[in-house]
Amino acid sequence: MRGNDRRKVTLADVAREANVSVSAASKALRHTDRISASTQRAVAAAAARLGYMSPTDRAKAGTRRGRRDRSGLVGLITSDYNGRFSLPLLTGAETTLGASNHAALLMSSHGQPSLERSHIDRLAAYGVDGLIVVGDTTNPRRPLDARTTMGLPVVYTYDPSTDPHDCSIICDNVGAGAQAIEYLLSIGRRYIAIIAGSEDFQAARDRAKGAQRTFTLYDFQPVDVLFDTWGEEWGERAARLLVERHPYLDAVYCLSDEIARGAVRGLTAIGKDVPRDVAVIGHDNWFVFAANVHPTLTTFDNNIAMIGKMAAKYLLDAINGHPHHGVFSVECPMVVRESTELGRRTPLEGSGRMYERQSA
Amino acid sequence: MRGNDRRKVTLADVAREANVSVSAASKALRHTDRISASTQRAVAAAAARLGYMSPTDRAKAGTRRGRRDRSGLVGLITSDYNGRFSLPLLTGAETTLGASNHAALLMSSHGQPSLERSHIDRLAAYGVDGLIVVGDTTNPRRPLDARTTMGLPVVYTYDPSTDPHDCSIICDNVGAGAQAIEYLLSIGRRYIAIIAGSEDFQAARDRAKGAQRTFTLYDFQPVDVLFDTWGEEWGERAARLLVERHPYLDAVYCLSDEIARGAVRGLTAIGKDVPRDVAVIGHDNWFVFAANVHPTLTTFDNNIAMIGKMAAKYLLDAINGHPHHGVFSVECPMVVRESTELGRRTPLEGSGRMYERQSA
Repeated sequence: MRGNDRRKVTLADVAREANVSVSAASKALRHTDRISASTQRAVAAAAARLGYMSPTDRAKAGTRRGRRDRSGLVGLITSDYNGRFSLPLLTGAETTLGASNHAALLMSSHGQPSLERSHIDRLAAYGVDGLIVVGDTTNPRRPLDARTTMGLPVVYTYDPSTDPHDCSIICDNVGAGAQAIEYLLSIGRRYIAIIAGSEDFQAARDRAKGAQRTFTLYDFQPVDVLFDTWGEEWGERAARLLVERHPYLDAVYCLSDEIARGAVRGLTAIGKDVPRDVAVIGHDNWFVFAANVHPTLTTFDNNIAMIGKMAAKYLLDAINGHPHHGVFSVECPMVVRESTELGRRTPLEGSGRMYERQSA
Repeated sequence: MRGNDRRKVTLADVAREANVSVSAASKALRHTDRISASTQRAVAAAAARLGYMSPTDRAKAGTRRGRRDRSGLVGLITSDYNGRFSLPLLTGAETTLGASNHAALLMSSHGQPSLERSHIDRLAAYGVDGLIVVGDTTNPRRPLDARTTMGLPVVYTYDPSTDPHDCSIICDNVGAGAQAIEYLLSIGRRYIAIIAGSEDFQAARDRAKGAQRTFTLYDFQPVDVLFDTWGEEWGERAARLLVERHPYLDAVYCLSDEIARGAVRGLTAIGKDVPRDVAVIGHDNWFVFAANVHPTLTTFDNNIAMIGKMAAKYLLDAINGHPHHGVFSVECPMVVRESTELGRRTPLEGSGRMYERQSA
């Protein structure tokens, strides 16, 4: 009997016992109508024989899971295909989870809700104690369906949940925008334009909003605010346009490093020196655009590893019965490089290495 | 008794029973000298009480693990900090593992052997059935210590193991080099130079070797082969130098997209049209350099998702008692874009999106 006492019976055990797939067992226990009555009965019988309790059952029964019941696994579901966010986030989360003897099971959903659901079914089958969801757009997202999560604690990162009762951890984009203009004014720039990305993204609206807050505070106005896309070519086109319209332009706050890299190219092509004539700021601290070519870019770091740490901490709190509710934001530190400081020379981070690496 | 029959007793169970850390239990069972004799005895007693068998014990006993014994978990250890390789590789591996009801536990080691060891200890504690190791340099690496893996099957990817008895899956860099020159000759280019990265990387030597093979086959010679670093600025500098030395230069094979992007910039700055005057090829199909700005780059895709699928398949074979031995290479398909084809115009993949996405 010892084995059963010591380890939680998982959905995978139930599925095996009932001789059905994990996904069928999950559906049967959630009583969805897409499963036959005979399968439902077989799964229910198997669950009863093994003494399986779904997280919802546990919640209903009012029993908080004891240490012995836990798998020590946390599921991480990312929609980020190339890993630019999810790997640093995983690394940050691992630091915190490791200290509590947890490990992360990572799965990628490519932002497809159906894949997200089936991944959660599989993670539940492995008995994970909670879930961290990693977005890649900054836009608020619909929370996971309660029938999918079956009572598991969830922390949303990068893209917050639209339900204010959920726990979400995001970048402080408003703060970054405010700080960017504060800094440009402090180095004496007065004709400042903003080259934004697409207005469809919360990040673009938030960074522009923060910038406007500082302008208002100091009784200034931007000479122009242009929204379009997030690409390098838009940055180049916008920079040329701005110089045509505003010959005294002396600073551009770009809402991404890609846009900033394009803006530097556009400004250089028409004979402007960066930063002497025009200072340029980006956002993301994405090595390939920010620190790979001169002039290296002054930019804001999204602090993704810190978001991972905080997500892990808040998830462990929820697992231990102390959930956090609301949207929490993590500061984006500013990294000053050549594109805003006269005479500054920073070594390229990419030279001599095969692939990009960032310091952890 | 059922529980013990149905589920494998893991190292974590032993550690808990002996009231020591997982890492201490692992060391004790491996009889390393960094652990006290009393701990060794406590762990051995706990292992005996629970009927724990290490993978090595199983191998020695000649018992192949039955289905019931398996955790259905595979450990993925990556040294790639930013996830450019590990996320596509994970996605590929998930496709194959999912079909066999396995899931991947991903951990990042940043290429540090000590972190690699402690991660494997933790993965072993979760009872993983095997390991996939993801490198990021293409250089052969020392195999994992047998005392660390304790008999678990391992597949090395991207960076092959130096032990030919191990199973390694890599990109066919020699084939890519051969195909690059084959293609440039087929479109009528005759004054071809190679801008390589650092000679310290196997990838640089292999791509150059493949190129030389085609030159020899057609009784041609490159006008120059220059090794230095992998950066954009080197590509720009090298392109200017090559045009100075060889006024008839009509093609450059660059061993990375970063170098190719720099070469295009250098050529354009001195009045050369790409591809009319000089055709340019890169390698990596890394969206930010290859498909983000005009002219988009003709390049080779590293086919990382396919490496992930193959690694998962070979690992499952090994778990089922049919290991593969040796270094297996996966072809890098060529992607033709504007930098080699007159009149071709491809849409930018980045415009209008916030962050890079690749088709899966």
